[in-house]
Order: sequence, then structure tokens, then C-alpha cells
Amino acid sequence: MTDIRSVTMSHHLGIDAGGTSTRAVLLDATGRCLGLGRAGSGNPIASGPQVAAESLRSASARALDAAGLGGAVVASLSVAMAGGSDVTHDPATASTLQQALLTVGVTAPIVVEPDLLALSFSGSPSPDGYALVAGTGAAAVRVQGGEVVQTCDGLGWLLGDEGSGFWIGREVVRAVATALDARGPATLLAALLDEALPTPGVAVVATEGRLAALSSLVDQLYAVPPVAMARFAPLAFEAAAAGDVVAAGIVEGAGRALAHTLSAVLDAGSHGPLVLGGSILTHQGGTRAHLERAWSDAGRTAPVVVVPDGLVGAGVLALRRSGVLVDEAVFARVTATLAPLR
Amino acid sequence: MTDIRSVTMSHHLGIDAGGTSTRAVLLDATGRCLGLGRAGSGNPIASGPQVAAESLRSASARALDAAGLGGAVVASLSVAMAGGSDVTHDPATASTLQQALLTVGVTAPIVVEPDLLALSFSGSPSPDGYALVAGTGAAAVRVQGGEVVQTCDGLGWLLGDEGSGFWIGREVVRAVATALDARGPATLLAALLDEALPTPGVAVVATEGRLAALSSLVDQLYAVPPVAMARFAPLAFEAAAAGDVVAAGIVEGAGRALAHTLSAVLDAGSHGPLVLGGSILTHQGGTRAHLERAWSDAGRTAPVVVVPDGLVGAGVLALRRSGVLVDEAVFARVTATLAPLR
Repeated sequence: MTDIRSVTMSHHLGIDAGGTSTRAVLLDATGRCLGLGRAGSGNPIASGPQVAAESLRSASARALDAAGLGGAVVASLSVAMAGGSDVTHDPATASTLQQALLTVGVTAPIVVEPDLLALSFSGSPSPDGYALVAGTGAAAVRVQGGEVVQTCDGLGWLLGDEGSGFWIGREVVRAVATALDARGPATLLAALLDEALPTPGVAVVATEGRLAALSSLVDQLYAVPPVAMARFAPLAFEAAAAGDVVAAGIVEGAGRALAHTLSAVLDAGSHGPLVLGGSILTHQGGTRAHLERAWSDAGRTAPVVVVPDGLVGAGVLALRRSGVLVDEAVFARVTATLAPLR
Repeated sequence: MTDIRSVTMSHHLGIDAGGTSTRAVLLDATGRCLGLGRAGSGNPIASGPQVAAESLRSASARALDAAGLGGAVVASLSVAMAGGSDVTHDPATASTLQQALLTVGVTAPIVVEPDLLALSFSGSPSPDGYALVAGTGAAAVRVQGGEVVQTCDGLGWLLGDEGSGFWIGREVVRAVATALDARGPATLLAALLDEALPTPGVAVVATEGRLAALSSLVDQLYAVPPVAMARFAPLAFEAAAAGDVVAAGIVEGAGRALAHTLSAVLDAGSHGPLVLGGSILTHQGGTRAHLERAWSDAGRTAPVVVVPDGLVGAGVLALRRSGVLVDEAVFARVTATLAPLR
């Protein structure tokens, strides 16, 4: 029989709830990772409260199962998500998420944390530093005393997210559109985008002196949510690598936009590390190098760390919120014991 | 009793069906305008087929009433609308529109025409020339032999419409957003936009180091359709006139984008006039002057004409499609007899 005293309320659950996928990690109070669970979209803004709640539930259940423990062991629970402050201000959504976790025995109250704070703590235990994400969206934060004290961009596809996957994808589409209607130069992106679309275009003039390929492109892109254009971002990197000048300009512009967003959160009095995340920065070395140069040009000497997601940080936050001091040794234990679970 | 022979099928109906409002004019075969009618949105893409059909019906009924004639007199019927070619390819929509006109006795088949072709024929009877519109959207066309042979931009808010009211309005919002999150310079646009929004912002730091005013701006703008941002375009002109450098940059950028779109349709062998329309070009003299300079810099000497809408052209097209030769004299009669009806 399990010793109830040693397991009851002595563990911590960190959940990195993303728009596409959710990861949960169960840690003991020393920072040792005991179980990892994955599920689909955990962001209630992106996918609705029901879908998000089910993802949080199943990722948590899997992490607990992997550790061979029940939800009752969870003393603190940190959920990192974009737009998290909106979620905590909506009682109905907060209740839906909490109820879902109750079904797996987790009674600890959900504490929603900014996704970029979890990103920062995924790369470093330093309570002072910077984080920049460039995935579908893009944002930068300054972290001081373990809290986000400044956020820049992250305004979504319509108003911002400059240099993000969406931004790059839309620039790809615009470059092709302007090439097809004689406003812009020819680009390799036209052929690459044509291959990537469900219905390939045909380069004949249709009605009103507009190429059928362009009409088809317009029809197909207005038929899906705007953020779906983020999936064309890799075409920019592919074409730029093949020497396409237009694509190189887009990639360069994204790096410049991200460096500008980062520069807006840099504070002369704050010298922590920079943590980078999101698919653009984890997969595209050129954009990452652009930011590393900008960091060093700003006279920064603290390390630049690239992380695959915010899971380590979600775990670190669960520990911190429970009063556990996460120093370099604890942080090293979290990262070292999480790695083999992935 | 009316002489049936003289009125039956000897008249022409031109309808300028816009996204916001619809205008119909009844003309006799000499180009004399006999009645004008107005109604709401006549674009089935913007407002759905039912709303558009009702607008076409009521504008036509009013034009016929004003002329004291019944729908049976209409020998030809031209409806100018954006995205018209899509409408004609959708039998259900075409049928809905036709049925609505049948209820007012109009049996002539609807001929849908490009809105920019009607714009071109609103400024000149020349079968060769150019038209540029900058309202909520933006597009340019080259007209040859009385037909649109090249279209540039007009790709909608997501993919293009560069220099349009939407484009300017979005730049206004972006300039304010970047000013509020420290990425961009301060601008008078922040105060003007705040006044224009239903819920004014408050300049205090809310969560995650983001100003409450910015969070409020983001929430309010994602709650309405993107194209609604076009209503902020006048703020750019207002702030630019007051000496705001950021706003002046936006206005300058719009002029440059529109000039670029125009330049893409210019053909060395085609020397017709340029017809300008849309709220940005009818209301903002600076942007109009920018385009007039671009036209003259391109070595063009043909006149530049600004028109309030495409109604004259819709009437001209109804006449042309019926075989009436619309020369300078007929064109002058259309414009002279329409003016007092407005």
C-alpha cells in the first residue's frame, strides 16, 4: 500500500497549453519529472473552452498515469497559455477548465500563467530576463522578479504578430499575388505556393483581365481562416535558400520585425538571458542568427537559449508558485529528467 | 392611355450596386436620364443575395416611379458590381437577383458588369482608358475596346487593396498599437482613435506589462469584421493635416501604393483618360494630387476625371449593350440630365 503521507499534495503539475498541442508534466518537489502527457489544443480562445478543457484533462491524466500517481498528489498547478489573463477573467471558462481537472482527481486550483513567462523559465531559472516567441504569432516580454513586466506585440494576426509565421505566410501570398497581377517581380514562391494549395492554379487570363491562377488563389485563401496562411511560412525559407530575392526579402523583413519587437522590451537595468521559442525560431537558423546578432549588437552578453516549448517553464512555475526555490540545481534537475520523457 | 409602342422596350436601366449603397437610373435611348432611385447594399458577396436583390429591386422601382414608367419599358439592364464575374457564375444568386427585378416588371436579363468598367464610363465615353478606385477596397483596370482587359489589385482586405480605406485604417490602428507597446513613435492618432472607439481606453498598465488601452483596442477590433477598420481612414488624413509625422507617412504610403497599382495597368499603346473614384479619392485631395502627379510623371497627357460613383457608367453600359452608340454628345446628355436628379 502506498504511503499516503509521502504522496499526498507533494507534487506539482505544469501544463503548457498551446493552440495546437498541450503538454503536461508532473514533478516532485525536488524538480524531478515523473510523467509527461500530451493532448491537442489547450487554448480556450483558439479552440473553445470545451476542447481546451478536454486537452488539459487528458494531458494531465496521461502525465499522472505515466508517473503511476493520482490527481490527489497535485499540490500546485500552473497552466501556461497565450491570452491567459483573459481566461482567468472569464469565470465560466475558468470553471470549465477546473471541472475537467477535477475528473482526474486534481483539486489544486488552476493558476494561469503567461505563455511567454513559461517560455522564459523553460530556458533559464533566472527571475530576470527576456523571452521572444515566433510561431503562428509573435511577441516579446521582459521578465523581472519572476513576473512579466512588459509585453510587446502579440497583438494577433490582424493587428500585429510582426515577423511571425502568419506574417511570413501572408507576405508569401502577397508576393505571389503581386507577381500574378503585374505589380511585383516574378518569384519562385508562385510555383511553391501553387503546389501547396489544394487546387493548383492555371496561368491563363480569366475574366476582367485577371489571371485565373490569381482568382483561384484569392478564392482559396478567403475560404479558410486567415491564420491558416501561417502554413506557407516555410515556403519563404525554402525559396530564400534557393536564391529567390523576393523570398529573401520576406525572411529578412521577419528577422528585422522580430528584432524590433525584442528591442522594445530591452531595459538598460535588466541583464538576464534571452529565451527564444516558436517554430520560426526553432526551425529557421537564419532568423535565429538574425536575433542573436541583434542581441549582441544591443551590447547584451547574457546567453541566448532556444527551447522547443514552454513545458519546463510551466513545471518551474508550478514549483515556484508552491514556494519551492528553483535555483540552477533544481532547474538542471527539471531539464535533465524531462528530456528522457519526451 | 399611354402609347404602348413608344414606351415598350425602348428604355435602359443602369444600376451601380455598391457594398454600402445602390443607385439605379432609367434612361431613354438618347441617353436622357428620366429617373433615379437609391437603396442599400446591392453586392451579394458583401451582404448576401437576398439583401442585394431587395436593394436592386427597390432602387429600380424608385427610378421607374420617378420616371412614371413601368418595368416593361426596360430593354437592357446593366448592373455594375465588384466581383461581378463571380456573381454571374453563380446561377442561384443570378436567379435571385433576376426574380427580384421581375417583381417590378423588368423582364430584361441582368447583365453584370465590372464596377471599374462602370467607373471608367462614368468619367468618359472613351472605350480605351484607365480607372482606379480607392474606397474600402482599391483596384485599377485598363479598359480597351469597351472591356476590362487588365485588373490590378482589388484582392480584398486580407491579400491586397493596398492604399484603400481599409489599408489606411489598419495602418492607423497598427501605428497606435505600436505606439502603445513601445515599438513605435508617439502619434496624435492614439487620441483620435481612442475618441472613435465605442469604449475609450485608459492609459494604465494592466496585466503582463501591457497597457489597458492596448488590450481594450485589441479586444474591440477583433470583435468586429476586419473591413470595419476602413472607418478609421479619415483619422490618418485629419492627423496628417495637423502635422503628425506618423499619419503623414501613412497617407504618403497610401498614395504610393495606389500609384504603384495604377502603374501596373498602364500600357504604352493605350492613351485614354484616367477616371478616379471611391471615397479616398473623392474626399482626399492630397491622395488625388499624388495620383495626378504619378499620371503626369508617367508621361500621360489624357485628362484625369474624378467621379462620385459608377452610375453614369452603368447607364452608358446599358445603352452600349443595347447597341446604342455612346459618343461625346450622348455621354454629355447622360451626365447633364443625371446631375439634376441627384
